[in-house]
Amino acid sequence: MQVYRSLEERFARISSIEDAIGILQWDAETLMPEGAADSRSDQLATLKGMAHELLTAPDTGDLLDQADQDSGHLDEWPRANVREMRRIYLHAAAVPADLVEANSRAVSRAELVWREARQTSNFALLLPHLSQVLSFQRQIGQAKGEAFGLSPYDALLDRYDPGLRQATIDPLFSELSAELPDLIQEAQERQKGRPAVQPLEGPFSVDDQRRIGKQLMQAVGFDFKRGRLDASLHPFCGGSTGDVRITTRYSEGNFMSALMGVLHETGHALYEQGRPKEWRRQPVGLARGMSMHESQSLLIETQACRSREFVTYLAPLVQKAFQGEGPAWSPENLHRILTKVEPGFIRVDADEITYPAHILVRYKLEKALIAGDLQIHDLPSAFNDEVAKLLGLTVPNDSLGCLQDIHWPGGAWGYFPTYTLGAMAAAQLFRAACHADADILPGLSKGDFAPLRTWLRANVHAKGSLMTTDELLVSATGEPLAAEVFRIHLRERYLGHGWGLSYT
Amino acid sequence: MQVYRSLEERFARISSIEDAIGILQWDAETLMPEGAADSRSDQLATLKGMAHELLTAPDTGDLLDQADQDSGHLDEWPRANVREMRRIYLHAAAVPADLVEANSRAVSRAELVWREARQTSNFALLLPHLSQVLSFQRQIGQAKGEAFGLSPYDALLDRYDPGLRQATIDPLFSELSAELPDLIQEAQERQKGRPAVQPLEGPFSVDDQRRIGKQLMQAVGFDFKRGRLDASLHPFCGGSTGDVRITTRYSEGNFMSALMGVLHETGHALYEQGRPKEWRRQPVGLARGMSMHESQSLLIETQACRSREFVTYLAPLVQKAFQGEGPAWSPENLHRILTKVEPGFIRVDADEITYPAHILVRYKLEKALIAGDLQIHDLPSAFNDEVAKLLGLTVPNDSLGCLQDIHWPGGAWGYFPTYTLGAMAAAQLFRAACHADADILPGLSKGDFAPLRTWLRANVHAKGSLMTTDELLVSATGEPLAAEVFRIHLRERYLGHGWGLSYT
Repeated sequence: MQVYRSLEERFARISSIEDAIGILQWDAETLMPEGAADSRSDQLATLKGMAHELLTAPDTGDLLDQADQDSGHLDEWPRANVREMRRIYLHAAAVPADLVEANSRAVSRAELVWREARQTSNFALLLPHLSQVLSFQRQIGQAKGEAFGLSPYDALLDRYDPGLRQATIDPLFSELSAELPDLIQEAQERQKGRPAVQPLEGPFSVDDQRRIGKQLMQAVGFDFKRGRLDASLHPFCGGSTGDVRITTRYSEGNFMSALMGVLHETGHALYEQGRPKEWRRQPVGLARGMSMHESQSLLIETQACRSREFVTYLAPLVQKAFQGEGPAWSPENLHRILTKVEPGFIRVDADEITYPAHILVRYKLEKALIAGDLQIHDLPSAFNDEVAKLLGLTVPNDSLGCLQDIHWPGGAWGYFPTYTLGAMAAAQLFRAACHADADILPGLSKGDFAPLRTWLRANVHAKGSLMTTDELLVSATGEPLAAEVFRIHLRERYLGHGWGLSYT
Repeated sequence: MQVYRSLEERFARISSIEDAIGILQWDAETLMPEGAADSRSDQLATLKGMAHELLTAPDTGDLLDQADQDSGHLDEWPRANVREMRRIYLHAAAVPADLVEANSRAVSRAELVWREARQTSNFALLLPHLSQVLSFQRQIGQAKGEAFGLSPYDALLDRYDPGLRQATIDPLFSELSAELPDLIQEAQERQKGRPAVQPLEGPFSVDDQRRIGKQLMQAVGFDFKRGRLDASLHPFCGGSTGDVRITTRYSEGNFMSALMGVLHETGHALYEQGRPKEWRRQPVGLARGMSMHESQSLLIETQACRSREFVTYLAPLVQKAFQGEGPAWSPENLHRILTKVEPGFIRVDADEITYPAHILVRYKLEKALIAGDLQIHDLPSAFNDEVAKLLGLTVPNDSLGCLQDIHWPGGAWGYFPTYTLGAMAAAQLFRAACHADADILPGLSKGDFAPLRTWLRANVHAKGSLMTTDELLVSATGEPLAAEVFRIHLRERYLGHGWGLSYT
């Protein structure tokens, strides 16, 4: 028990350092004056270094072994905590310090060059840097793979989503891949047969947008005593567990984009704010992984807030706030705006139904690059081929193709699949919730998220990292992660009649 | 040289942790949601603990000894750096860890109780807690005193102002003490013979106040690429060296108070922003101490910005900004507002000439308490006696007396004298600057601070902690710290004819 306590203490300190890092990174994206970037880099590098040293201290491995031997005396949560501690420890200890540092330097350079390469659509400029990042990622995958007994790509997946394996993803994604091109086309056909989308005429003042955003955050259940809403270039959910800070980006011409951004990040924030307070500084208290995290944002943003029920509530609210007039402000037109299907080149601008196609492209390619089955200089043409196949589009330049995302130059290999796995989990969880509580959907049409939030809190948020993702999904929905409910959801919303079926 | 480098590296890491702490503390005072206080406390305690561990690592003392032996090979700055490293190390290592922790807990409790005690003017409520803090401060003074070969109170002074000793302060303060009561009375007499101060009629919008504040910060020379202005309950200058964040407090009824607060903090900020960049993360790059720091804020706020030259520039500017009308907005009336003398109970509301009296009271009493010559339960009556003697006022209750400041419950014993030593140094430096460059005063009447800033940068800011405070003052003004120029300044401004003499 004493061994376990001393591990808890060590991980609590690590958690506080990481909370501090979270606030400092949030500050860097929202308020920091530009000339402070160097000094902030020093701060972040120092704090990350100290957290890494604490985690990989010479005795951590021994303490974990001893705690494992004593684990019969531990309750369920502390036992799971030791398991999570070991996973985090292995991820950190598996990679030699010089490789960590070399990778971090290569990533910093590649990110810098990427900004210029994307702007000028110059893949050749990025190529040597991207090649170096890939080489380090393969080495990291190798090193972690040996520590965990996994393939390199599985080891990379595991750092974002514990327990996630290629063998799980492949069948799910091939189901989608087979169906998606037809689905996209059918949805577009059906869209043509419906009244054209009428645009909402701005300008919409940023103050009004912020006010409505906060009002909806409050309705969804965001706790402003433990978080904030601010603006940044790229919307995100950050800060620390006890102080969740979400951001959005405002445009005076289009309030819907900032608003849906706010609702998306609020979904993430609910997950952060809803986990058990007593495990706040321990590994078992962390979110279960990026797929589950994305499921929480998509559940709020797409499942709940693009539903016809919620749009019924939203339409008069925004019409009044922005003093809108005319049929463009009807719930029907608003819903058409929120469910418009239009294949495009840019992932982050994609609608719910074409988004997975962007992920399928990236998943296939990064897997092949890590495995050595694709050479990095062939990336642009391979990328464009896949886009043509899945989205029916001809990529005109690499800025609109393989240069658009920061993930690869940024060293986040193995991250992309979690977006679409999150969308699948969101559909599955939302259906289970609506089946479990018949008040959820009627609640949304009154802006009342309490029934939905109560179900999510009990079945997802309160579980932290007690179980694996699949165990969590089985306990909440009766099934492990599957593509089926997501596919049904897309068919119902995009090929169904009227507004699409609802689950009631 | 290698020993020196490894010390530099260690202190650079400590500096980055402290920079991070600075930003996190700023955030806690300005933006943090209230429910995040516990989690922020965990972060700050963890980071402070790590900085302390790094500083007092078992080999730091040995490394410093070796660096001292090699110091013949070091240039002036690295040599001074080793000296400053040792001072910081000794302050940290001299106090046993359990005393540090016991003191920190006692301070947290006492600060909490103090808020209530001040509100209800209940000294008895605070007494046991204040007594405990005092006892720990005496023990800390004892422990540090032994390490440095100093008396306990000198050791406490040294942590805020390296090299500052009671033997230096006593004669300076007794000069002031002898003169101040008469000076205050004469200034009031003279004030009566002049036109009455006409109040400026508000309300003054916070947006306008912020805009004018920023405009003046820019004029004084604040670098907004490496800093910000925000609002907080108590104005301060914080953040980190590369990212200086000052705050003020706005009231719609009185723009002058927020504005003078901004100018005061801008003086602190210039010192932060003006120190040599290459020594940013090293002890020798730190500010020379709290007296010098306060001299920089008072030099800008009182010496420069309450001068008749600056007020000539300020009056039309604020009149236009707030669309003021009538004789209340004349430079003469504005100057009368900014130099109004009125003895009062509250230190932080005091004018330039009565402020030192508040400090003399506190200095005398905290010295006696640390020495054991005054018992803590006798503090209220002793405090009130001193106020009667120096300010001619009868303190009606302890909220307006010895309970007004956070310093004593907060464990900041030895801090008070630096306010008035700073005022002395400010007068001395400002006169030297005006003598050295005849463009400084005419510059102020055009809002042009460049000549003053250039002199300060070269003679104060750029020196960091290379020299002692007295060496720094001798090199900049030809004299060590003295009361004389300050006394002349007060006589000229408050007893002189017309607007008071200027130095040209």
